[in-house]
Amino acid sequence: MDMSRTRSTRQRLVVIGGDAAGMSAASQARRLRGPEELEIVAFERGHFTSYSACGIPYWVGGDVAGRDELIARTPEEHRARGIDLRLRTEVTAIDPAGRRVRARDLGSGTESWTSYDHLVIATGARPVRPDLPGADAPGVHGVQTLDDGQALLDTLTRTRGRRAVVVGAGYIGVEMAEALIHRGYEVTVLNRGGAPMSTLDPDMGRLVRDAMSGMGITMVDDAEVTKVLTGDDGRVRAVATQDAEYPADVVVLGIGVRPDTALARAAGLPLGDNGGLLTDLAMRVRGHEDIWAGGDCVEVLDLVSGRERHIPLGTHANKHGQVIGTNIGGGYATFPGVVGTAVSKVCDLEIARTGLREKDARRAGLQYVAVTIESTSRAGYYPGASPMTVKMLAERRTGRLLGVQIVGREGAGKRVDIAAVALTAGLTVEQVAHLDLGYAPPFSPVWDPVQVAARKAVAAVREAP
Amino acid sequence: MDMSRTRSTRQRLVVIGGDAAGMSAASQARRLRGPEELEIVAFERGHFTSYSACGIPYWVGGDVAGRDELIARTPEEHRARGIDLRLRTEVTAIDPAGRRVRARDLGSGTESWTSYDHLVIATGARPVRPDLPGADAPGVHGVQTLDDGQALLDTLTRTRGRRAVVVGAGYIGVEMAEALIHRGYEVTVLNRGGAPMSTLDPDMGRLVRDAMSGMGITMVDDAEVTKVLTGDDGRVRAVATQDAEYPADVVVLGIGVRPDTALARAAGLPLGDNGGLLTDLAMRVRGHEDIWAGGDCVEVLDLVSGRERHIPLGTHANKHGQVIGTNIGGGYATFPGVVGTAVSKVCDLEIARTGLREKDARRAGLQYVAVTIESTSRAGYYPGASPMTVKMLAERRTGRLLGVQIVGREGAGKRVDIAAVALTAGLTVEQVAHLDLGYAPPFSPVWDPVQVAARKAVAAVREAP
Repeated sequence: MDMSRTRSTRQRLVVIGGDAAGMSAASQARRLRGPEELEIVAFERGHFTSYSACGIPYWVGGDVAGRDELIARTPEEHRARGIDLRLRTEVTAIDPAGRRVRARDLGSGTESWTSYDHLVIATGARPVRPDLPGADAPGVHGVQTLDDGQALLDTLTRTRGRRAVVVGAGYIGVEMAEALIHRGYEVTVLNRGGAPMSTLDPDMGRLVRDAMSGMGITMVDDAEVTKVLTGDDGRVRAVATQDAEYPADVVVLGIGVRPDTALARAAGLPLGDNGGLLTDLAMRVRGHEDIWAGGDCVEVLDLVSGRERHIPLGTHANKHGQVIGTNIGGGYATFPGVVGTAVSKVCDLEIARTGLREKDARRAGLQYVAVTIESTSRAGYYPGASPMTVKMLAERRTGRLLGVQIVGREGAGKRVDIAAVALTAGLTVEQVAHLDLGYAPPFSPVWDPVQVAARKAVAAVREAP
Repeated sequence: MDMSRTRSTRQRLVVIGGDAAGMSAASQARRLRGPEELEIVAFERGHFTSYSACGIPYWVGGDVAGRDELIARTPEEHRARGIDLRLRTEVTAIDPAGRRVRARDLGSGTESWTSYDHLVIATGARPVRPDLPGADAPGVHGVQTLDDGQALLDTLTRTRGRRAVVVGAGYIGVEMAEALIHRGYEVTVLNRGGAPMSTLDPDMGRLVRDAMSGMGITMVDDAEVTKVLTGDDGRVRAVATQDAEYPADVVVLGIGVRPDTALARAAGLPLGDNGGLLTDLAMRVRGHEDIWAGGDCVEVLDLVSGRERHIPLGTHANKHGQVIGTNIGGGYATFPGVVGTAVSKVCDLEIARTGLREKDARRAGLQYVAVTIESTSRAGYYPGASPMTVKMLAERRTGRLLGVQIVGREGAGKRVDIAAVALTAGLTVEQVAHLDLGYAPPFSPVWDPVQVAARKAVAAVREAP
């Protein structure tokens, strides 16, 4: 069956992917153009729409009562707004020349072509699965989709194990470590690098490792996973590295995600070095007037380094969708780029970063000074003041702020926003030291920790040759 | 005794006022120039140096164990660094033409002149005392200095009363309300205006009133205090307004402070509309090469309105001192101005503002749109997510951010820093909506509340004529 394009002036928007970017785009386009002007068809492979994938660790950990709380808008709500949503329907091909996509109903197995006037590709990301013996064994889980989360929860409920191994020590890995602790597991985190949180410099990552070790999480650095071992029942029983075996009733893969761009690649659409779709600032796929892309399947411009990066984060996906929907709806919007802000939490440890790490700065051809300071989240004498470490990079000679990393406790993480705005505005560390930030003893020392770092960076820039 | 100026190349710095601005200036100057180059004499009227006046409410409330915790650096520590500190010594005259100050030892009553090469005026602010019958009665307290705080604590300990009246509902008033609640008092806050926190627009101030009422604090608006009533023992027993009498075992004056510039005025130094000293950007008193001023006795440039304002805050005082000391020490530094950021806490209520209120914008000749939104401190599904209200002002046509006000619970207050940096950088509300801010469910909804407000402001700017 070929649903051929209507001949009237009514246009058809086809959306591939029913999560944040895709459905934000659909909703915003609908807000600007009614059903008489714009037909909207959205294909989603899974069972759910518009959910918070970032919330999965908290659902698994029991902080969030149920799956439905993570769903911002249900399929029914989208349909009530005039979006023709097809769940359990996988797009299997994009035909840019013919302006159509082929989709398969996963229930019936039937395939058909649907033509479009505007196409939005929001296919998201897929967790990296190590190409290892046993990696697909029952009990080994990714946590990228609600379906993944449900499968993991089913395993946890059914097996009632007590030992968990998390492979990977990035955001997903550390958040899942907390979730599994909350469920009473003994948790081991296997980390390929020399320190966890490779989105931080190693010196800051080591602070994270020490704090997590202090919480009773077994942290193993330089761990190259060689094999997932299974028992007689075929289920996972341990994870082997080059050095040791770690018994496991459940294994969570947190070794990152890659843009899910197989469809786009097959269609000849432009991909970047990180495998994500390349778009212009209006989120239009480069060289394609009628194809847009957003969310975890695209690369975004890093405003500090001037390079394209892949940063899968719900907050960007929502903004992309908003921009795409506005443009398709006849408005005008752009997504100017990112500075690389991220914040995460493991028990009461808060971890944040924005801008460039040392190796990013070197790769971008920037020379820099780096300083690290200790301060507190509140005035030192105020109850609950907790220590925090701030690392700051500034460009040599110009003193321009290049990046900030923070490891601390309550009240530490969101301070990274000060630096995120300053990076966007291109402020120097001296300007950061002068900022008029909110001060009162329950909120900050008289010099905010970010400004303590900035003052030290000012001195370092001055002393650098 | 006239301590005449030394004839050598060694210079003398005289500092009037031993708190944040004065002693930061002295310390920074000492760091850059040793005792052989620069003699430093500091006069302080009270018993203490370098203390956190902002911490007094928490000391009175019992959150901070003792007075000494509020002292960042003791007189002995300053003396050990080669600063000739004279406590209980009040400067009674400045003679700019003769480059000397007259000081009186409050113990012996003797007066003498001291000459200077550089003079730093850091005389701070004085609480406004209403010119009312009974306003000086025992049991009526200001809370500007450690000596004030000690006197109030002595009263609280001695009288063991149960009813407290706070006159004034600005930062000091609301913080003292919390302190008195912590000490078991029934607290009534008498507020002259139509809503507390006149540093906010009235619509946001009313949210504060409602929240404080909900905490059991009696909030009285439009209360003009006419008289402080005393008992047979001469001590305060009630506060009378035009409408009613409020029984009081203790009264705290929180009706604001004024720059303490009587000395400067007598010496003919330039004062602004708010009674504060006027300086250039290097914190030098205008028209006087060798006189500097900082802290609560100066006016500062508001970068958003382009006007001078009086903003007594420890964080500014410390920066002023740093700048002054650097310049006297032979370096170069400026204090570029403020955007008017302030944050405060009453029990678990957080109150923040930056930039212009509606009336400030009008006064500055700016036309604006104002929007208000409700959001949450964390992802709605994450435990502990609490509601917050954000009001945002943007300039008509240009969309430039003009101001933000926030009333919420834990995690609300310091979000104002996002806007503080954006104001400093002159960002538009559309740029604010695009910012790459730290997002994870324990820290923020997928659109930070400040960005939810920014999106609404973008729409309002677009729709405004």
